[in-house]
Amino acid sequence: MRVSVVGASGYTGGEALRVLLGHPRVEVAQAVSESFAGKPVWKAHPNLRRVTDLAFSAPDELRPADALLLALPHGTTMRRLAAYASKAGLLVDLSADFRLRAAEDYARYYEVDHPASAEIGTFVYGLPELHRSELKEAARAAVAGCTAAASILALAPLVRSGLVGRERVVVDAETGSSAGGREVSRASHHPERSGAMRLYAPTGHRHTAEIEQELGLRGRVHLTIHAVEAVRGLLATAHAFPEDGVDRKALWRIYREAYGAEPFVRIVEDPTGIHRYPDPKILAGSNFCDVGFASEQGRIVVSAAIDNLMKGAAGNAVQCLNLMAGFGEREGLDFPGIHPA
Amino acid sequence: MRVSVVGASGYTGGEALRVLLGHPRVEVAQAVSESFAGKPVWKAHPNLRRVTDLAFSAPDELRPADALLLALPHGTTMRRLAAYASKAGLLVDLSADFRLRAAEDYARYYEVDHPASAEIGTFVYGLPELHRSELKEAARAAVAGCTAAASILALAPLVRSGLVGRERVVVDAETGSSAGGREVSRASHHPERSGAMRLYAPTGHRHTAEIEQELGLRGRVHLTIHAVEAVRGLLATAHAFPEDGVDRKALWRIYREAYGAEPFVRIVEDPTGIHRYPDPKILAGSNFCDVGFASEQGRIVVSAAIDNLMKGAAGNAVQCLNLMAGFGEREGLDFPGIHPA
Amino acid sequence: MRVSVVGASGYTGGEALRVLLGHPRVEVAQAVSESFAGKPVWKAHPNLRRVTDLAFSAPDELRPADALLLALPHGTTMRRLAAYASKAGLLVDLSADFRLRAAEDYARYYEVDHPASAEIGTFVYGLPELHRSELKEAARAAVAGCTAAASILALAPLVRSGLVGRERVVVDAETGSSAGGREVSRASHHPERSGAMRLYAPTGHRHTAEIEQELGLRGRVHLTIHAVEAVRGLLATAHAFPEDGVDRKALWRIYREAYGAEPFVRIVEDPTGIHRYPDPKILAGSNFCDVGFASEQGRIVVSAAIDNLMKGAAGNAVQCLNLMAGFGEREGLDFPGIHPA
Amino acid sequence: MRVSVVGASGYTGGEALRVLLGHPRVEVAQAVSESFAGKPVWKAHPNLRRVTDLAFSAPDELRPADALLLALPHGTTMRRLAAYASKAGLLVDLSADFRLRAAEDYARYYEVDHPASAEIGTFVYGLPELHRSELKEAARAAVAGCTAAASILALAPLVRSGLVGRERVVVDAETGSSAGGREVSRASHHPERSGAMRLYAPTGHRHTAEIEQELGLRGRVHLTIHAVEAVRGLLATAHAFPEDGVDRKALWRIYREAYGAEPFVRIVEDPTGIHRYPDPKILAGSNFCDVGFASEQGRIVVSAAIDNLMKGAAGNAVQCLNLMAGFGEREGLDFPGIHPA
Repeated sequence: MRVSVVGASGYTGGEALRVLLGHPRVEVAQAVSESFAGKPVWKAHPNLRRVTDLAFSAPDELRPADALLLALPHGTTMRRLAAYASKAGLLVDLSADFRLRAAEDYARYYEVDHPASAEIGTFVYGLPELHRSELKEAARAAVAGCTAAASILALAPLVRSGLVGRERVVVDAETGSSAGGREVSRASHHPERSGAMRLYAPTGHRHTAEIEQELGLRGRVHLTIHAVEAVRGLLATAHAFPEDGVDRKALWRIYREAYGAEPFVRIVEDPTGIHRYPDPKILAGSNFCDVGFASEQGRIVVSAAIDNLMKGAAGNAVQCLNLMAGFGEREGLDFPGIHPA
Repeated sequence: MRVSVVGASGYTGGEALRVLLGHPRVEVAQAVSESFAGKPVWKAHPNLRRVTDLAFSAPDELRPADALLLALPHGTTMRRLAAYASKAGLLVDLSADFRLRAAEDYARYYEVDHPASAEIGTFVYGLPELHRSELKEAARAAVAGCTAAASILALAPLVRSGLVGRERVVVDAETGSSAGGREVSRASHHPERSGAMRLYAPTGHRHTAEIEQELGLRGRVHLTIHAVEAVRGLLATAHAFPEDGVDRKALWRIYREAYGAEPFVRIVEDPTGIHRYPDPKILAGSNFCDVGFASEQGRIVVSAAIDNLMKGAAGNAVQCLNLMAGFGEREGLDFPGIHPA
Repeated sequence: MRVSVVGASGYTGGEALRVLLGHPRVEVAQAVSESFAGKPVWKAHPNLRRVTDLAFSAPDELRPADALLLALPHGTTMRRLAAYASKAGLLVDLSADFRLRAAEDYARYYEVDHPASAEIGTFVYGLPELHRSELKEAARAAVAGCTAAASILALAPLVRSGLVGRERVVVDAETGSSAGGREVSRASHHPERSGAMRLYAPTGHRHTAEIEQELGLRGRVHLTIHAVEAVRGLLATAHAFPEDGVDRKALWRIYREAYGAEPFVRIVEDPTGIHRYPDPKILAGSNFCDVGFASEQGRIVVSAAIDNLMKGAAGNAVQCLNLMAGFGEREGLDFPGIHPA
Repeated sequence: MRVSVVGASGYTGGEALRVLLGHPRVEVAQAVSESFAGKPVWKAHPNLRRVTDLAFSAPDELRPADALLLALPHGTTMRRLAAYASKAGLLVDLSADFRLRAAEDYARYYEVDHPASAEIGTFVYGLPELHRSELKEAARAAVAGCTAAASILALAPLVRSGLVGRERVVVDAETGSSAGGREVSRASHHPERSGAMRLYAPTGHRHTAEIEQELGLRGRVHLTIHAVEAVRGLLATAHAFPEDGVDRKALWRIYREAYGAEPFVRIVEDPTGIHRYPDPKILAGSNFCDVGFASEQGRIVVSAAIDNLMKGAAGNAVQCLNLMAGFGEREGLDFPGIHPA
């Protein structure tokens, strides 16, 4: 299958390229980038030197392909949807442009009037653990936001088991610097960002909308995002407040039932050792989402760790594409991560 | 005033020495350490090379002094209190041994039968922002735990203003590796700890007891501690759920009233720039606690940043000592921290 | 082919397991570890959770296999060689026990009388770029030390081109913490090791012997090793002093001729951009060695970057094994590394 | 004494402000910044919040003062010298504009025709350890470059003792990100810079000129600069090649004689422990330069560690000012650094 990556010089696009170049069923047709057009791919992604001879194409050179993986800034896909749809039968969009089902939410969270609101329903929310059967039938996927993916995977089993009830949920997410993308800024300047440990978005982050939508918790998710020292890692820690007590054994049963057969979700909860809970440190480059939990009187704490560019973006996109294309769900995604990292 | 530091080779003891060696009203009489007895102070604390000629004394060489600063493992001061009390009129204890007022809490949180429970009442909880006038009269202080100090300073103004009401409070704290102290372990092994981002104590951390005690929130504080990449920093982020709405202006008023006159608490909440919220990154070596806040429908988010060895331990201890000894509260504690750090 | 890893719970053993578990021609027969015997492999290597069901075997449970990959502390293989040789036809040893050809060098550099000096000649030095044809015929390989591998790959083309002449060579190597292995120590305690930038071995490091042997520079290599903040990375920067001038074009020709056909050595030298020189940051998990260079009047500077556990140990070992077993040299080693990392 | 800092919003200017605000003999008259004019000082330097009420002044608001500390981009002081000289009797310049004594060197190293070459002789090279008596008489100082300061302090005793002879010297310097200053760039983008370990300037760095000038080693200094993960630290490691052997005792004598009385140079060379050699990690915020050494047949290795913004810039500048103004040399510079850091 011929796949092109549009927006291929960014961090997400680069990871999409890396994964697709190693995918046994995929040929990368084009790597499209406005700013790097004409340059070899390794100029933006030095890890791909000698791995591919591909050079970046300009946007107007985009050719028809079987699938497009769109790694563009928010607001781009929604404006150019018809053009992309004319090029390929399968569209996997990594932006937020078609994640939310209610058109008015785009105005609220992204301050934009959705120019293609009639098309929203043609996209499936790109999180295979919740939408696998729809993705198998879909031609278009809107890949989950990174914080949303982790938060939803942490909380979904609790919600389904009724343990969240009518209570609010608090999610504290910690994130590395690659989540901010390739563009430089004062906030990403190394002397300022290195070793930081601060509130990045105490309230009102856009991913809240996705989490609430997917979990059916409208108005009840309180999300806070912290910037900490890391490049790739993302850890979402959710606090739920069950009405009745719940013990470790019950939580194990709930999570094992939810994720025992999932190819990319692992339950990490050990009573001993130093790897008792999920840590995104060992997930760099892998598509795993590690989920762990604990509880005390009146509270359940669940944390989910991912690589924000993989299960939080490009890896998850390829997992969606595998389902949409009828490939094996794990194909191209077998890198397990390294330890120590 | 002649002050001796007992347990002076640990990280907290080292910071106590550094601060006291630069204190205009203090002469460091002895630095006591079992493991380093006889060695120069710089052997444990390389920053103090050429700053002091002092060598460590063995515990049985402890001489009478005006004040003792006790930086010992939990459980030591409670067993040797009489011996220390016989050496000095002022005792500033950095362990947890006399922080909790209810003797039964030591069994619950520290699995120990308190051997000196009759003396608990002779210690004032060492957090000047809450107990300044008592500390001025006190001969003994039990310095606040690091996570407790930050959490209490974040939440106290909200509690006093009634904004916490009868609701629970969720506190997510992120902490650097020095909080684990000087002893090596697999968890502190650099390849494992570097870049970590994981749950260290999802539930049930001992500092919960102090926070609930000081804020009068028995059974309502849910504390989770994360280990992140940092050495000194500690950031406590508290989520409170007010019954009625509260805006930025009201929060400013509440915090300004609480902390406007505090020498070591700064309010950090800017609408612009990259330093909009507290970041312990710029506090290394300083005694400041930076507090910031935000709110949304149904939730207030407050974060407090400290250096866990300074305002979280040795710096706060010297601040207490200054009050107990009648010194200026800021004396010896004027280092503002560096930027970038 | 059935391969067992002995010393499988250490960092090098763990990487060997990861690579071999993904190798298309290899079945991992056993993972042998004294300290983890009976426990699942993921207890030591959390990245391998769900990747393998293997549990560690005790040393006395070692069964015959086609090949053994020995990841043991220095001094072990030399004492147990006969036992290992009786178990498998191919031995790939990661220790220093058979790297040096002169028996007396073990006394000088490792303070040990070699108990199997008659067998030294049966091992080929495990660096395919220098010994490919011998490795194809070999049954035993002594895999290069990490600093040695990088230094030799940096310098070999210069030596062959006569640019080193009779002059000395200075090598400054910077290394991450995983080079110190799995065992905890005060030097690896996170608060001490984090952000360090110091001389680890200013003079006399053991890898000097390997570099001098392989390059034919007896007594002329001056190696200094620095510990810097990193886990995996190793950068060796060599300074050579040619008698005559040499320009960029000539250096390109020399390195292209030496490495143009090498599957795992890349030349990284760009006049523009931020990736002008090798950086081990993008090599974590990959078997690449990136080499770059520059020159000025009287000096050539060459740097080689590797992942010290991959091209510096386990990856290089598998590359040797591929040659010894007649596999494709790249098999199992296709992970390109991630960016940003 | 009234001192104004010009270029006060940069990193060097910020450290100058921090030090001067705590200086017992100095009143900071103005903090001048073009980009931050009118804003409070803490907007650029968050550590100074509540430490000073000062706001930045615009350049054209500069008033007469006793001394100016000029922390401007290279090329600015040389063009505006007359204007600054008309404002204050003492000028301490942190740029490279007056460091080199030979006017033609500015063309070679800085690609600039010096517009005030007649004034070069009015500046003393700002490194008190080499020019103390001249600085005491001077009205103008050109503060040493950060890499130069460390390299010169490492090597000067060797040169004076004749141990360098007629041989070349190789200097490998490792530097943190603050050396690049406040301006953002792709090279300083956190995802790219974090954990980097690469050649920043393999050859031809400008500081070579200062080192050669101050040590009298024209054409014999080979400097290479590496970027590593750090914000403040700078470690210069010099390799010298003595004709005759030299042992540890002789080196100790040479360095003790050179630096035993220096207030800010410490000799760090211990046979045991983890602090055997200098590490800039413990120097953040301090003005110390720690020097250590080792030797082997044919080579001496000396390393010098500094905080690049303190002894490498602002701290050294204040030390110069103290001498020029007749103050105690240590005044305002007593912060010893923290451990662990």
